[in-house]
Amino acid sequence: MLYSLIDILGTIAFAISGVLVAMDKRLDVFGVFIIAFVTAVGGGTLRDVLIGNTPVGWMTQPNYTIIIIITVIFSILFAGRLKHFRKSLFLFDTIGIGLYTMVGIQKGLDAGLLPIMCIALGTMTACFGGVIRDILCNEIPVIFRKEIYATVCILGGGIYFLMLQFPVNPDIPYITGIICIIVLRLLAVKFKIALPSIYNK
Amino acid sequence: MLYSLIDILGTIAFAISGVLVAMDKRLDVFGVFIIAFVTAVGGGTLRDVLIGNTPVGWMTQPNYTIIIIITVIFSILFAGRLKHFRKSLFLFDTIGIGLYTMVGIQKGLDAGLLPIMCIALGTMTACFGGVIRDILCNEIPVIFRKEIYATVCILGGGIYFLMLQFPVNPDIPYITGIICIIVLRLLAVKFKIALPSIYNK
Amino acid sequence: MLYSLIDILGTIAFAISGVLVAMDKRLDVFGVFIIAFVTAVGGGTLRDVLIGNTPVGWMTQPNYTIIIIITVIFSILFAGRLKHFRKSLFLFDTIGIGLYTMVGIQKGLDAGLLPIMCIALGTMTACFGGVIRDILCNEIPVIFRKEIYATVCILGGGIYFLMLQFPVNPDIPYITGIICIIVLRLLAVKFKIALPSIYNK
Repeated sequence: MLYSLIDILGTIAFAISGVLVAMDKRLDVFGVFIIAFVTAVGGGTLRDVLIGNTPVGWMTQPNYTIIIIITVIFSILFAGRLKHFRKSLFLFDTIGIGLYTMVGIQKGLDAGLLPIMCIALGTMTACFGGVIRDILCNEIPVIFRKEIYATVCILGGGIYFLMLQFPVNPDIPYITGIICIIVLRLLAVKFKIALPSIYNK
Repeated sequence: MLYSLIDILGTIAFAISGVLVAMDKRLDVFGVFIIAFVTAVGGGTLRDVLIGNTPVGWMTQPNYTIIIIITVIFSILFAGRLKHFRKSLFLFDTIGIGLYTMVGIQKGLDAGLLPIMCIALGTMTACFGGVIRDILCNEIPVIFRKEIYATVCILGGGIYFLMLQFPVNPDIPYITGIICIIVLRLLAVKFKIALPSIYNK
Repeated sequence: MLYSLIDILGTIAFAISGVLVAMDKRLDVFGVFIIAFVTAVGGGTLRDVLIGNTPVGWMTQPNYTIIIIITVIFSILFAGRLKHFRKSLFLFDTIGIGLYTMVGIQKGLDAGLLPIMCIALGTMTACFGGVIRDILCNEIPVIFRKEIYATVCILGGGIYFLMLQFPVNPDIPYITGIICIIVLRLLAVKFKIALPSIYNK
């Protein structure tokens, strides 16, 4: 129930981030919709394809498509006012990546994969919609260049697997993982923490 | 029989569109061939991967590869004269997207998907070879920016499912869908109909 | 045993080529790792997805991920000195594409595909990690523009299938294919052999 709500809010936030990038590139309505769509479901789609979980998720669960269509229509109609919601969108986005990382990790566990591969799948679920969005818009993916984003997913996934070692109700590591990702990302953005630079200047 | 002929003409038209874009970017022979290949079979390949229909179509049906190889050789040899055939190529391309949309829809129905997902698969089959072509050539996909292209596939797919509600021979909606897509696209290009702009200026 | 060694050297060489391109684009640590990773395993991943061999190879064999992580760490630490190893890296890379072409061909044979499709899969395994690397870095893939690279994989694959016609120990065509690819590539680079130009000027 709570998870469904987070899922919806996350999908909306991801789709809007797609709309904003696509409108920046002045794509037409169809282009804006496709970019919003791949931003929202691209990470999970890549994960499903790589583990052979087909037809991929969004094809059998039409609710995502419906949420994205409605989000795109409202985003285009109220494009000028979207900037007033940047803080809420950032929050939904952050909550979304927390949940999606854990969803991806579960899919990896269901497929019998090792923890390190589950964390890779979780990070992919949360972050690679944005990677596909940027490639389709002819940009080097933003998460390869700046901001701690994927790193907090990896950390959250690590904390989840650490906690699984202890005899606790399995819901606790799951929720802790989500909360860690959210808190770490909020802290990273608030204190402008970036990955250490590997370049001399 | 007629479908096979349309399929061959469509494959040739798609492959030539790939050759033209690739030569514009001055790729070498191998690059030109790969771009022609993904333009022709990329949409169907993406569809097959997403629904788990593997090995993907072109691997088990070598006729596509052979047609594309021959098309690429002739296109390179007669590159200078290709422009005289632009009208025929446009027609073959248009007939091709009509057929490929319906082929994709059938694959979706075979996979037990909802009509809206079948239409998405049909549109993908017809249009996403061009998307992959543009990404490989480092361009924002042209169908996200201008021209009614994917929209007519979506409309044709919608008409197909509407007609399926009536007690008619299943061939009739199929053929009607193809014809609607062809006619709508010809009209859209002739009367320069574009999607309504979502930008103020 | 020998194959494992070649496999490891090839993975290292591919990963380092990814690190070099990524650092050239000044990506952050996460970006550098992802580019190194897709360069090393991207070709095999695409092959596995297209034939339906899922979960894809690197998910069930964590050794690749470990080798790549170590390679990336060392490459970043000693980035300035990597240029002294260009010749060794070129050699490992060349030996790698020889092996990977044959690995891809075997996977195609296991999937019951025709020789031409097996050669396509082998070439993809060897060359398409670099294609994905270039797309993620917002470049037109280098193998579409210059240097004989994919062509030697195709030739080596052809020689393999030719030799299979003769009643010899199956290891012989396999090893001959690898050696042919290595020798042809070394010769092509030494004598600056390129594909014939298809442009007038």
